[in-house]
Amino acid sequence: MEPAYRIVPHLQDELDQLKARLLVMGGEAEERVRAAVRALVERNRELAERVLEDDDLINDLDLEIDERCFKLLALRQPVATDLRVIVAGVKINSNLERVGDFAVNIAEAALRYMEHPPVKPLIDIPRMADIAQGMLRDALDAYVALDTARARAVLGRDDALDALKGQVFRELLSFILENPAKTEPALDLILISRHLERIGDHATNIAEEVIFIVSGRDVRHHAQEGGAD
Amino acid sequence: MEPAYRIVPHLQDELDQLKARLLVMGGEAEERVRAAVRALVERNRELAERVLEDDDLINDLDLEIDERCFKLLALRQPVATDLRVIVAGVKINSNLERVGDFAVNIAEAALRYMEHPPVKPLIDIPRMADIAQGMLRDALDAYVALDTARARAVLGRDDALDALKGQVFRELLSFILENPAKTEPALDLILISRHLERIGDHATNIAEEVIFIVSGRDVRHHAQEGGAD
Repeated sequence: MEPAYRIVPHLQDELDQLKARLLVMGGEAEERVRAAVRALVERNRELAERVLEDDDLINDLDLEIDERCFKLLALRQPVATDLRVIVAGVKINSNLERVGDFAVNIAEAALRYMEHPPVKPLIDIPRMADIAQGMLRDALDAYVALDTARARAVLGRDDALDALKGQVFRELLSFILENPAKTEPALDLILISRHLERIGDHATNIAEEVIFIVSGRDVRHHAQEGGAD
Repeated sequence: MEPAYRIVPHLQDELDQLKARLLVMGGEAEERVRAAVRALVERNRELAERVLEDDDLINDLDLEIDERCFKLLALRQPVATDLRVIVAGVKINSNLERVGDFAVNIAEAALRYMEHPPVKPLIDIPRMADIAQGMLRDALDAYVALDTARARAVLGRDDALDALKGQVFRELLSFILENPAKTEPALDLILISRHLERIGDHATNIAEEVIFIVSGRDVRHHAQEGGAD
């Protein structure tokens, strides 16, 4: 005989689970970016190809998390901060999915790059990757803990990434002008630097969502210089 | 004396209003892309600078629509298709905001491009712009009408944009190899073609959301080749 009651998980537990899944997805996105950049630096074709193929986990997480958010909205009818956390979860999910796409783009560019002799020692690009990955990790931690200080710190790091992107561009442009045979691989490095800068951009979006959840203050469209690049 | 009742708008009217605002935002995003590309083709500095400055409307719409979605979720506690329409509204809002950012990126690249003699007559880029704008318009119309046939038609046009992007790249690469002095402006055209391809990408995302709302079938991660570019 069926019991007359059902044990329903506490909403907070379900929110914690949502956050945990987003952390897993963030970790997976980050790992794919790391692998793609490593493939570039090591000229490791096999590793780059693995990044292109192994997108099942991140795609599954994307769909799963979307479903979780939807169910929470439909069945729990949350309000106030809980509602903001869930709606932000939908957006963060999209941001992380895009980061996964950038990892693929970086891996594709790395494969093209490997077809040519190296243009230069890779220093700025791995540095950009470290910064972008750190921003992403911290933005997600800020979301889980609803920590606006940590979120604001992420916003501050955007400039370092922008500066490196400019530096990479100027340096590679001079290589191309000096020796047009280097154009294609140099272009791929420029594209990779842009993908990394966009990853930082998405980390910034996540951080802005956190600030909005906690303070109700919309820092979006104030922090941005008006371009997504 | 206050009446004992309140006239509450019908939920369908509020959903229609949400859709109407998204159409306005879509139109504004599209208009800014059109202006940016026109500025490039006409070498019109003033028009390009206007695109960079006039982002108030689209930013205001972004915040307003987010707020509408939030209120609908909090106060109306929608379920089923209505809930999907609202959650999709949140995502479409983000997509359109990014399209607005791409318009800014195109305008910035156009301004840089104008600093140099023209590299070539601009044919493929305006064509890409037309396709991307058409995809965006149709994706939004599909959302408003929950028309999956129209949504699927949008998905089909992604390939044309990809093909043009490849064509633009190959042609500009040959210009650079022929004459390295053309590197910077040629690079800016390559970047513009990539921004336009990404706009088509965002139109595709919107179309995929429509199909998901109506059929519950997730076409995301099936249609994509795995990269956002």
